[in-house]
Amino acid sequence: VSRREQVFWGWGEPGAGPELPEHAGAWLREHLGLSGEVVDRPVGLADVRLRAPALDAKVRERLAAVAEVRDDDEARVLRAAGKSYLDLLAQRAGNCEAAPDAVVAPRSAEAVAEVLRICAEADVAIVPFGGGTSVVGGVAPLRGERESLVSLDLGRLDRVLGVEGQLVRVQPGLRLPEADHALRGHGLTLGHFPQSYEWATVGGCVATRSSGQASTGFGRIDRNVVALRMATPQGELASREVPASAAGPSLREIAVGSEGVLGVITEVSLRARPLAAERRYEGFFLRSFADGCAVLRDLAEDGIAPDVARLSDEEETAASLALAGRAGLARVVGRLRPCLLVCGWEGDVGRRRREARRLLRGAGAFAAGQAAGRAWQRSRFAGPHLRDDLLDRGALVETLETAATWERLAGLRDAVAAALAGLHVGCHVSHVYPTGASLYFTALGRRDPADPAGQWQRHKAAACDAIMAAGGTITHHHAVGRDHAPWMEQEMGALGLDALRALKERLDPTGVLNPGKLLAA
Amino acid sequence: VSRREQVFWGWGEPGAGPELPEHAGAWLREHLGLSGEVVDRPVGLADVRLRAPALDAKVRERLAAVAEVRDDDEARVLRAAGKSYLDLLAQRAGNCEAAPDAVVAPRSAEAVAEVLRICAEADVAIVPFGGGTSVVGGVAPLRGERESLVSLDLGRLDRVLGVEGQLVRVQPGLRLPEADHALRGHGLTLGHFPQSYEWATVGGCVATRSSGQASTGFGRIDRNVVALRMATPQGELASREVPASAAGPSLREIAVGSEGVLGVITEVSLRARPLAAERRYEGFFLRSFADGCAVLRDLAEDGIAPDVARLSDEEETAASLALAGRAGLARVVGRLRPCLLVCGWEGDVGRRRREARRLLRGAGAFAAGQAAGRAWQRSRFAGPHLRDDLLDRGALVETLETAATWERLAGLRDAVAAALAGLHVGCHVSHVYPTGASLYFTALGRRDPADPAGQWQRHKAAACDAIMAAGGTITHHHAVGRDHAPWMEQEMGALGLDALRALKERLDPTGVLNPGKLLAA
Repeated sequence: VSRREQVFWGWGEPGAGPELPEHAGAWLREHLGLSGEVVDRPVGLADVRLRAPALDAKVRERLAAVAEVRDDDEARVLRAAGKSYLDLLAQRAGNCEAAPDAVVAPRSAEAVAEVLRICAEADVAIVPFGGGTSVVGGVAPLRGERESLVSLDLGRLDRVLGVEGQLVRVQPGLRLPEADHALRGHGLTLGHFPQSYEWATVGGCVATRSSGQASTGFGRIDRNVVALRMATPQGELASREVPASAAGPSLREIAVGSEGVLGVITEVSLRARPLAAERRYEGFFLRSFADGCAVLRDLAEDGIAPDVARLSDEEETAASLALAGRAGLARVVGRLRPCLLVCGWEGDVGRRRREARRLLRGAGAFAAGQAAGRAWQRSRFAGPHLRDDLLDRGALVETLETAATWERLAGLRDAVAAALAGLHVGCHVSHVYPTGASLYFTALGRRDPADPAGQWQRHKAAACDAIMAAGGTITHHHAVGRDHAPWMEQEMGALGLDALRALKERLDPTGVLNPGKLLAA
Repeated sequence: VSRREQVFWGWGEPGAGPELPEHAGAWLREHLGLSGEVVDRPVGLADVRLRAPALDAKVRERLAAVAEVRDDDEARVLRAAGKSYLDLLAQRAGNCEAAPDAVVAPRSAEAVAEVLRICAEADVAIVPFGGGTSVVGGVAPLRGERESLVSLDLGRLDRVLGVEGQLVRVQPGLRLPEADHALRGHGLTLGHFPQSYEWATVGGCVATRSSGQASTGFGRIDRNVVALRMATPQGELASREVPASAAGPSLREIAVGSEGVLGVITEVSLRARPLAAERRYEGFFLRSFADGCAVLRDLAEDGIAPDVARLSDEEETAASLALAGRAGLARVVGRLRPCLLVCGWEGDVGRRRREARRLLRGAGAFAAGQAAGRAWQRSRFAGPHLRDDLLDRGALVETLETAATWERLAGLRDAVAAALAGLHVGCHVSHVYPTGASLYFTALGRRDPADPAGQWQRHKAAACDAIMAAGGTITHHHAVGRDHAPWMEQEMGALGLDALRALKERLDPTGVLNPGKLLAA
């Protein structure tokens, strides 16, 4: 298999990603009380603990007749977890006891359907696996009372099926960079750039309602899905490929975001974007986070927001300048405590930018130039690579996110920051809508070696409770998975959750699809 | 009750709407073989046939404790049908045997919930009633085996609850003109202008996934709903009021378009639009419908489509000029057979219009000036008024609509036109998306006095079959109601329909909500 694969204990192809710079050590010492030295290393594959595969031989044989089946340690360990902080803590320590019993990789939509039928019949749990980049336990191999669990790897369904104007049909296992590579010849891009871009698949993005860094301009993935096909144990659910319809509740919007709990997406029709002829990324300093939010709101209401709009709060601005080694600038920033706004314009730069700059000047913004924009562009996918380095150095490092209406945004930010007290917390607005915005938090701290998982779980639970109380959504773009499931009743109401469970019971009556996720109590 | 009310047999407040002009007679003679004389008049209220109200006295009493209850003829007859051609045929003839047994008008979301509980307990069918403008049998009083049926009139829930920036919270029974009137003081408009604008309610638009004439620019109503509350017999279903969320399948998109079959919308949060500072409506002539579609596709793909974009085909262009009395122009048009494109720009006129005109020139378009745009603006809500006149004159007159991807659009138009053979058929593109467009057909003919309903039903069924076969959606903005329900299995697939029925069973287990609509076999 020549497909790119991640490392089981972290993010990148080893050595491929950016590393924490030398001068970061000082920041880690000052702000987190860490030595800056490597104090922890992931175990090697040989030292990982996992059980012998527990898949019935007859079932394995039936699956092997319709799909590639692997049960070697490497395949199983790589699909034993996603890429959250908690996942990496466990993986780095070689704790893969729950790894899937087999990895099943079909090559067609029909074979996916067949795998579902076989597993439903044999009561084998199925975890659909795209890029494996979930940070909410979305691919956690939870089998409940079941004896066996397989990882349904969609990596072999990776073709572009057709391009008609801006309408693009793809298979779910296609990774985002490969999708954009294939579309480039048509003058198109998906325009979808989550931080997981390097590994994420189109199907995974659709199943989790992903948002990319340019979603302010290009829209979340759910806004760009035109139609899809989804295999379920009861047959195929397919929405009609039309630009819009008034025919009842939206099947598309039931399948989108269903996280492998209702079915497995086997084909997606998407709206793609023309490649931008012109592109400009630049930075501005705002006097306060409140000033920045106010101007972003104005930009969004006026329909002239940049395609990428990211406003860091005072903490995050200071930390990122310090970590970028811009000590001089960081000192100035340390005194004035401004907030950095990165604006990225993709196509139609002139008019929007001109009008936006007028609004920004009116809000007292200070232009930081294209260098600030380019610096952000260079490091836009660096976070998860740097995290591996931070984990080596004994850090607690995790992110969480939410969204709210403009009126509730400031209160929401304060509430989450309070819930994360004791950690170093940076926050940014990363997606802007006419009616509100998302908030993204990065928490850093000194890992408690006695109970590293419990340490974060307590913070995370407090943050989620705070989000719910302050009127945010439990997730703007990380999805629900296992980790947010306990808050779904607050998110949807008891009846709303019950309604979704009714769908689950109809489409997956034996409950083999991704147990313990999304709709689990 | 001071609320505006329609006439039971047609559209307007009598005398309030535009009437068919004098010179239309010649066109009706030439093209439909009608005399142009009035040959048919609606019966008066006294001559309407309806059964005595069959609502149990105890139930009536319970309902009256939480809502206004009326069972006079006037109230019942006005809620006995929507406003389709078939509805008006029946109403004009005084055929209201199936009229609701009572009209129940609660004044709060809590009272709506109470009405649902009482009716579910007593097994009384409920037809939610907003503006009553359905043209697909959406408010048809179908009781099935039930003894009683009430019309749940939402007209008393007509308040604006709050405005925060562009986020607007309203009650469902608020009519669109009243909503815009209230929002004007905030510098806002809903920007939603269906042809039923004069009577339609916000809740009705949301429940039916309405599109307005400016939806190309401002988006369909489903794209502008931020959140909603829906009463069901099992309790309240409410989506969270956030600008976006990745928390699973969308409850909002399950409630939107549910046509009173899953619940009754009691509150809606919407994104409104700033009032346009500048506005320009103008016409262009294209050499052919294909040329016009090609340029609309280019405009949509480039993101510079006008907010209102309507391209009439050769037949519709000729007919509308003739009916508008522009005989000289009509003669020229008769020879050249061009297609009229109306472009309406609302705000940000300059840049988009400049770029669009360049594309239009390149496509060989001939500018017809602002007169053509203004003429369309003046008559934008005239259709249903003129229909009353046409019905008086013995015409068959009905519309239907669909949407498809750009590649399928020409074939779809030809297929529907073929299915309506024998009638005079005009067609226009009325909503444009980057991946496709909607088609709207107006069919005119000489009514068969022996079987007027059957005459249209046969045409309509043939057209719906053609739409399905050609890859269109059964409805782009008229919704499903009773009339499109037989095609829902083709639209959604058997499993898709089954999934929606699972929702129905969970939310409305006794099936009292709008029986026979949307999900009915």
